[in-house]
Amino acid sequence: MSDFQLSILGCGSATPSPRRNPSSQVISYRGRLMMIDCGEGAQATMRRLGLSFSRLSHVFISHMHGDHCLGLPGLLSTLSLHGKKSPLTVYLPAEGLEIMKSITDFFCREATYEINYVALEGAGGQILDLPSLTVEAFPLYHRVPAYGFVFREKPKPRHLRADMLDFFKVPVAMRPKLKEGADFVTEDGNVIANSRLTTSPDPSLSYAYCSDTMYDHRVAHAVKGVDVLYHEATYDDTLAETARQRGHSTARQAGMIAAEAGVKTLIIGHYSKRYYDTEILVLDAREAFPRVIASADGLQLDIALLSK
Amino acid sequence: MSDFQLSILGCGSATPSPRRNPSSQVISYRGRLMMIDCGEGAQATMRRLGLSFSRLSHVFISHMHGDHCLGLPGLLSTLSLHGKKSPLTVYLPAEGLEIMKSITDFFCREATYEINYVALEGAGGQILDLPSLTVEAFPLYHRVPAYGFVFREKPKPRHLRADMLDFFKVPVAMRPKLKEGADFVTEDGNVIANSRLTTSPDPSLSYAYCSDTMYDHRVAHAVKGVDVLYHEATYDDTLAETARQRGHSTARQAGMIAAEAGVKTLIIGHYSKRYYDTEILVLDAREAFPRVIASADGLQLDIALLSK
Repeated sequence: MSDFQLSILGCGSATPSPRRNPSSQVISYRGRLMMIDCGEGAQATMRRLGLSFSRLSHVFISHMHGDHCLGLPGLLSTLSLHGKKSPLTVYLPAEGLEIMKSITDFFCREATYEINYVALEGAGGQILDLPSLTVEAFPLYHRVPAYGFVFREKPKPRHLRADMLDFFKVPVAMRPKLKEGADFVTEDGNVIANSRLTTSPDPSLSYAYCSDTMYDHRVAHAVKGVDVLYHEATYDDTLAETARQRGHSTARQAGMIAAEAGVKTLIIGHYSKRYYDTEILVLDAREAFPRVIASADGLQLDIALLSK
Repeated sequence: MSDFQLSILGCGSATPSPRRNPSSQVISYRGRLMMIDCGEGAQATMRRLGLSFSRLSHVFISHMHGDHCLGLPGLLSTLSLHGKKSPLTVYLPAEGLEIMKSITDFFCREATYEINYVALEGAGGQILDLPSLTVEAFPLYHRVPAYGFVFREKPKPRHLRADMLDFFKVPVAMRPKLKEGADFVTEDGNVIANSRLTTSPDPSLSYAYCSDTMYDHRVAHAVKGVDVLYHEATYDDTLAETARQRGHSTARQAGMIAAEAGVKTLIIGHYSKRYYDTEILVLDAREAFPRVIASADGLQLDIALLSK
């Protein structure tokens, strides 16, 4: 398992299904947990999957429909019951700020940790800059203000070639600079090109989340070149008009966005409850894009594997 | 199965357990559904048990801790998605009225049905009067204002004795009065005592819900003589001091309330998550009261059977 994991806590749509929770996912990145959307039941599934509450640092809410955020008040309460100490930052569309603060004020009066809210507005942009990862928000096209998110690893250090470091007698103190790509200058003033001393870094991985949204080229543009794309696929192809009217996408449209954006793997989800199994949706999506995975509650995926 | 059923949707306490949802129950009474408390996950379990959303008419919230009411916003949204038309009445402690209305205003903007809120205050009393059933609220003793509820069937009609009606030639029009206990006066002015024409009615059943509360004799007084009592039993006997401090009861205390109130069956629940199985709690309760049932998520019980 790599440093970059995705756990699907819920992949159903608004009308509840006995088989699927509403939307929620957790990104595990180097020991840190970040949640995307928090439908009812997210905290219970998080526990079932053994994802530690104490490691949760950020929650990103795509939009203020209940099936994407009504698990948040309960989760915030629970974090206190678990004695969480480190702060939690919640990103959510500006229109949800007031109500979510009111709920928190009422139900988390005895919070053991700091809750920070960040309002998403306008065109989004980079909203988080961690040492090895950034998170960007970008607009989706739904019935209410909605945002997608891209989790993007920063460039990684180059790999040192031990044999060449020995040969050129590179001092230990120089090595961090070489990992960043610097050339090595010997005591005699000879320049040894970095490419002789190092090999390419591991690829920087990226994951994008798009739910809920209608089919729109601007979404493909926003997620251009990410490795793994989660895109909602609420309906099959015969319900394209319903999808458009409700601000949703069909599975084939999810495939078209994946193809246009040039991703490596497409994960579909946010299924209407009419689909007991998801085979028809996978088949529809595959007509536009070959590598499709159907999300399922409890499914855990390795972003590195899906990026190959 | 009788007309009066109880479905346990969740019997865990605030700290979530992967095995138990937080508090929620549904009373099925002659085709009507009434919910008591609505912790997160209640709506999902309701669906799993095949309890129809459209038949839900009343929700009774005992107190405004998240594990007893944070499933309500999602449930209210879902009822609209299911196209509910008939009104829903939500009873809740007065302090919760404003926040719950704010949440409803935000998340149920497109409600297809009328939501009425009734604030519980002071000593409670009868809060609902249906054709065959009443509901009373009474104070519990917890860290915030909290109410228990008694569901009490009204006296039922007496059974007519067909042989005696024939013998005394009782006109059909008189029969409803006889069922209510009236004597029959013949054309000659003779009075035939009701007891010769009818037999006793079926017993009127009653069910009381007490969660969350510390051990208090006033609770036993409020539920005096009910047939079936659900009483919280958060801790085992060794944690009596913790129970008192947190405004909760031990299982033995639940048994003591059942004994003092003279009920027929005690159902315990609201278990701390430290109890993987509930055997120790059942044994503790049985030291004070013999007939104890351990609630479990998804358990469905017949109040008539438990009242014998």
